[in-house]
Amino acid sequence: MNRHLIAVLAAATVCAPGAARADEGMWTFDNFPSAAVKAKYGVTIDDAWLDAVRGAAVRLSSGCSASVVTRDGLVLTNHHCVRDCAQNLSTADMDYVKNGFAAATREDEKLCPGMQAEILGAISDVTARVSGAARGKTGQDFVKARDGEIAAIEKEGCAGREADYRCQVITLYQGGQYKLYTYRKFSDVRLVFAPELQTAFFGGDPDNFNFPRYDLDFSFVRLYENGKPVSAPAHLTWSRTAPEAGDPVFVAGNPGATQRLLTAEQLDSLRNFVLPERLLQYSELRGRLIRFGEESTEHARIADDTLFGIENSFKAYHGQEQTLADPAFIDAKRKADGELRAKVMADSTLAAQIGDPWSDIAKAQGDYKALFTPYSFLEARAGVGSSLFGYARALARAAEEKAKPNSERLPEYTDSRLLLLEKRVLDAEPVYPELEQAVLEFWLSKLRENLTADAAGTKTFLGKESPEALAARLAASKLGDAALRKQLWDGGMAAVRASDDPMIRFVLATDAASRAVRKEYETRVSGPTDRAAEQIAKARFAVFGTSTYPDATFSLRLSYGRIEGWDENDTPVPPFTYFGGLWERATGQFPFDLAPKWAAAQGKLDDKTVFDMTSDIDIIGGNSGSPLIDAKGEVVGAVFDGNIHSLGGAFAFDDSVNRGVAVSTAAITEALDKVYGQHALVSELTAK
Amino acid sequence: MNRHLIAVLAAATVCAPGAARADEGMWTFDNFPSAAVKAKYGVTIDDAWLDAVRGAAVRLSSGCSASVVTRDGLVLTNHHCVRDCAQNLSTADMDYVKNGFAAATREDEKLCPGMQAEILGAISDVTARVSGAARGKTGQDFVKARDGEIAAIEKEGCAGREADYRCQVITLYQGGQYKLYTYRKFSDVRLVFAPELQTAFFGGDPDNFNFPRYDLDFSFVRLYENGKPVSAPAHLTWSRTAPEAGDPVFVAGNPGATQRLLTAEQLDSLRNFVLPERLLQYSELRGRLIRFGEESTEHARIADDTLFGIENSFKAYHGQEQTLADPAFIDAKRKADGELRAKVMADSTLAAQIGDPWSDIAKAQGDYKALFTPYSFLEARAGVGSSLFGYARALARAAEEKAKPNSERLPEYTDSRLLLLEKRVLDAEPVYPELEQAVLEFWLSKLRENLTADAAGTKTFLGKESPEALAARLAASKLGDAALRKQLWDGGMAAVRASDDPMIRFVLATDAASRAVRKEYETRVSGPTDRAAEQIAKARFAVFGTSTYPDATFSLRLSYGRIEGWDENDTPVPPFTYFGGLWERATGQFPFDLAPKWAAAQGKLDDKTVFDMTSDIDIIGGNSGSPLIDAKGEVVGAVFDGNIHSLGGAFAFDDSVNRGVAVSTAAITEALDKVYGQHALVSELTAK
Repeated sequence: MNRHLIAVLAAATVCAPGAARADEGMWTFDNFPSAAVKAKYGVTIDDAWLDAVRGAAVRLSSGCSASVVTRDGLVLTNHHCVRDCAQNLSTADMDYVKNGFAAATREDEKLCPGMQAEILGAISDVTARVSGAARGKTGQDFVKARDGEIAAIEKEGCAGREADYRCQVITLYQGGQYKLYTYRKFSDVRLVFAPELQTAFFGGDPDNFNFPRYDLDFSFVRLYENGKPVSAPAHLTWSRTAPEAGDPVFVAGNPGATQRLLTAEQLDSLRNFVLPERLLQYSELRGRLIRFGEESTEHARIADDTLFGIENSFKAYHGQEQTLADPAFIDAKRKADGELRAKVMADSTLAAQIGDPWSDIAKAQGDYKALFTPYSFLEARAGVGSSLFGYARALARAAEEKAKPNSERLPEYTDSRLLLLEKRVLDAEPVYPELEQAVLEFWLSKLRENLTADAAGTKTFLGKESPEALAARLAASKLGDAALRKQLWDGGMAAVRASDDPMIRFVLATDAASRAVRKEYETRVSGPTDRAAEQIAKARFAVFGTSTYPDATFSLRLSYGRIEGWDENDTPVPPFTYFGGLWERATGQFPFDLAPKWAAAQGKLDDKTVFDMTSDIDIIGGNSGSPLIDAKGEVVGAVFDGNIHSLGGAFAFDDSVNRGVAVSTAAITEALDKVYGQHALVSELTAK
Repeated sequence: MNRHLIAVLAAATVCAPGAARADEGMWTFDNFPSAAVKAKYGVTIDDAWLDAVRGAAVRLSSGCSASVVTRDGLVLTNHHCVRDCAQNLSTADMDYVKNGFAAATREDEKLCPGMQAEILGAISDVTARVSGAARGKTGQDFVKARDGEIAAIEKEGCAGREADYRCQVITLYQGGQYKLYTYRKFSDVRLVFAPELQTAFFGGDPDNFNFPRYDLDFSFVRLYENGKPVSAPAHLTWSRTAPEAGDPVFVAGNPGATQRLLTAEQLDSLRNFVLPERLLQYSELRGRLIRFGEESTEHARIADDTLFGIENSFKAYHGQEQTLADPAFIDAKRKADGELRAKVMADSTLAAQIGDPWSDIAKAQGDYKALFTPYSFLEARAGVGSSLFGYARALARAAEEKAKPNSERLPEYTDSRLLLLEKRVLDAEPVYPELEQAVLEFWLSKLRENLTADAAGTKTFLGKESPEALAARLAASKLGDAALRKQLWDGGMAAVRASDDPMIRFVLATDAASRAVRKEYETRVSGPTDRAAEQIAKARFAVFGTSTYPDATFSLRLSYGRIEGWDENDTPVPPFTYFGGLWERATGQFPFDLAPKWAAAQGKLDDKTVFDMTSDIDIIGGNSGSPLIDAKGEVVGAVFDGNIHSLGGAFAFDDSVNRGVAVSTAAITEALDKVYGQHALVSELTAK
């Protein structure tokens, strides 16, 4: 393995730098560089290949990716993509996260609350319409005109077929393009199989974003319609065989967000206050929840998924912060910005068309800094994940917004988005008052700390109450009851106003302050920034052409690369781990302890089975669960992570060290067969 | 008040910028700018004035400042300087932090464990000796030669009188001067009076570093020798009257640390990784301890002082981080560095003498970054405050170091320092196993996270144990027993090696790794940096002369200024608060709730009594408890805080907004009289 890696690296030195070497790019399906792939890997990616993959690629509303892998609608994703679902289905007596979940029959497959699966059908360009509607407008007017037009396009696009389709306008190239993506949607997604947490997430947070890795981070859900498994959908063929080092591979999934097209001044803001402050918030909440979880088995169970999410985000943002802390990084960006700007200025026609959006963005950063704290605490991150706050805000705002014309609403309450919101609000799932109280107390105390005790916002949200007393009062809300939520959703503003639920009262009393800071933010920060970003995108297209890929926006993309390790401080890291390595890494203590079934299986498994593997594909958070596909279009793994160097991928792709990590279908198949005795699933997966 | 402030500000505009305006500087007593003070304020600060103040100024080994204020050795300091002592004297049944402490008679005054008071006598220059010993040496050799010579000077300086005196070589100007400070020491310091926490720290963390403020942050301790109050020591006269706005004031105290003489590259390191990483650690530990404290009244009690220390440090470092996050700040420093360097290079004699220390420091920053994490976790911040770990390390290292010649020991174990260390190790004070376990678990889990699970350091410290399991095992150590510690201290290495205490075994197993990373750090980072800093200091003296003040090093300094508010976003903040404001700010909910005695006293107190006040004196952490002195040399307050703008004072003093905050002796006297009925104390303070 090492020998091969060295050979690859040696070969790289004779290649031209840049495009010939770098397998960079999260490409849209309508702009995939098939010629480059053909030239480099000899693989033909034609429309039939692309259509087959697109038709099986799934976006999960939980923020993950997935793929249909059988004719009965079985969907492969990561365990950590259903960890929330498994927890929601658990009780104090039956913990499906800890013990795993296996439906004995199809009747035992269980609905994942709030989860929707979406498969992309058509793509159409609506740039002219969206940009046209906002042309000449500034500040919040720009935001409103753009969002209003998007709302109209989305509504028209799926008119009359909203029950089965979702229309979404996707912003690409930071506003350089707007495309209407039409998805077939599945609102009934059921959990089929999930391994034990300690198997799926062996090594836990310490090993997260690291490699070598020994995680069986997969699970299966199934798409249902009309109460039955979806019939004969497009699906990928399941491969029992792992790829070899150097093999070309592809990833079809939904990378969440990258910031590669941001200007240097925007990166300065991320580095100077956005990331530092966000990390501090995560750290303290993490500390509170770690201790919360240590108080009892039940506290550990109910805090599990929230804590995992925080630790995962913390590590990702920490890596981003460290990338930007290298002064050379932003300096290089500044230089590139300057070069593009100089090219625009040198062409008087282009200069007249583009203006000076770089200065506009630079100017907005002072306002961003001034508004960052109130906007975060009162609006964008209000509630910091409290379910009760989330329900109350959704109920109150939906009631208020629905009374307005579609194009004048807050975008998250337009007709095209209300159906998924309604599902999320109304699906029954457990709410844990003790956890709610802990999270709310954290939010309110940090709100006071960061805005200061004397700020108007603090007085609006806290009055004379302490964060501790207020959190306790709000956690007594009854909005955990799905029937009550339905009553308030259906009853609209009259029902909401009549409610004496403490959280509803709290949101009604504070929402004007939240909306006011949002308006300020859109007027002074996001409006000017988005408008300028559109201009910069136009400049890029004019100067560099359109053979580029857009920043990630949790929409379907295709990345390519090959199975490959990397060099860590001159030491080669091979691209594969094997079952045999798991036994060596196990210590018997959390999080390096084996699940009982695995401890029992040692000796029964082939130690040489490929477990996890790395490739130089360009992915980021949101790609979790994406199928890793070989040249034939067969699924050979499920992407679940990147290595530590992938964290800088938010801002730039470094082909020499940035690696994606996948669990192999070979390992999944063998584990289903020999550890879990899931012979029916194995048959379903490998049926011809 | 506002009118006066505006007048002051208007006057400022007609003054020349710089020295004439800025009351900047933490001056040593042997280099105080009396002429400047005379010119600006018309106050004569002669040797007699200086000697009288120096003779009453106290340094507390708890990291605070104080002053003797009566002929019976009563010492004024802050409440937060004895919060640890009050907690150590408390039990689950009697909480002196919450309820306050008042000794009914002198016999009831209680020893503060580990606390030593020190009063500066003589100052002598030993620069030639220290610098000479290290001349021509580099890396760790430089560190060892310097530290060895310091150890010898300190030992010689107090030879034969170690029981009553402490000799300490103080590093000034980042190594530009070394001075031997000889202190009269008092090892028997007893708590006399402390108000309730909610009175001393009204407004709690939200109001910390803020103003207007309503904190009675004072306490009294008393110096004892031979079991009796020290007889007729030098002391300051107690003033019952508050100063007026614009009055000149002075602060004699021990500012802990500033970094005003650091190079831009050193500030880059602070901004890029030191402060961000430290803040993240504080945040998570804070979160864990907040939740720990919420678990029970007793948990809240035992975690109180630790949590306060973390929150206080967090806010201070956060302010520092925000100061350095402004790119203009370090850029200005870089420019100033460049100018000094250019002046040196322009003078060939000077250039030959100084060399290029700026490049040496810049070069060391890469090593600093590489070593920062292991050095922090394994050595400098190992144990993150665990008493058990601290005891074990002190016992093991003292035993090992005492066997070496004085000049070859780690500096904290040289003869001149062992006496205070011994007192700290042997004084009985409570150790709380549950709190220890929480802190140790935090340390060990962050050690693994930051070094990574596979690092050699992690394996040395954790072996195959989880942080949780190891912390639980170590927290069972019996080193909380002072008698056991005495046995191990007296028994030396043989006793330590024979111990089966888990924490002793742990330190013995890991100390070689800790020492190795320290050696690496001294060789590659602190050695080259300190050596270069000496050269830069010489360059400064050569170019700017010696009429400057050195960075703070927790040694006695005198600052001057006047009672003055500031302008906050164009709104004047007056320099005084009054008792009347307290009733208005109280909400009834923590931390804005009144202690019962205070709620009862409303109406009995003069609402116009000056409570807290600001002045433009140059202070920083370590100055807590310092006397605020008027022109006559009388004590008019106790400095307990700075405003939020003072946090940037670590790097530069901004006279326009940086303010120190003090509680007035007027408020203290009236509270002692009318709230606490402490008539004997009032008589003692006001006796002629």
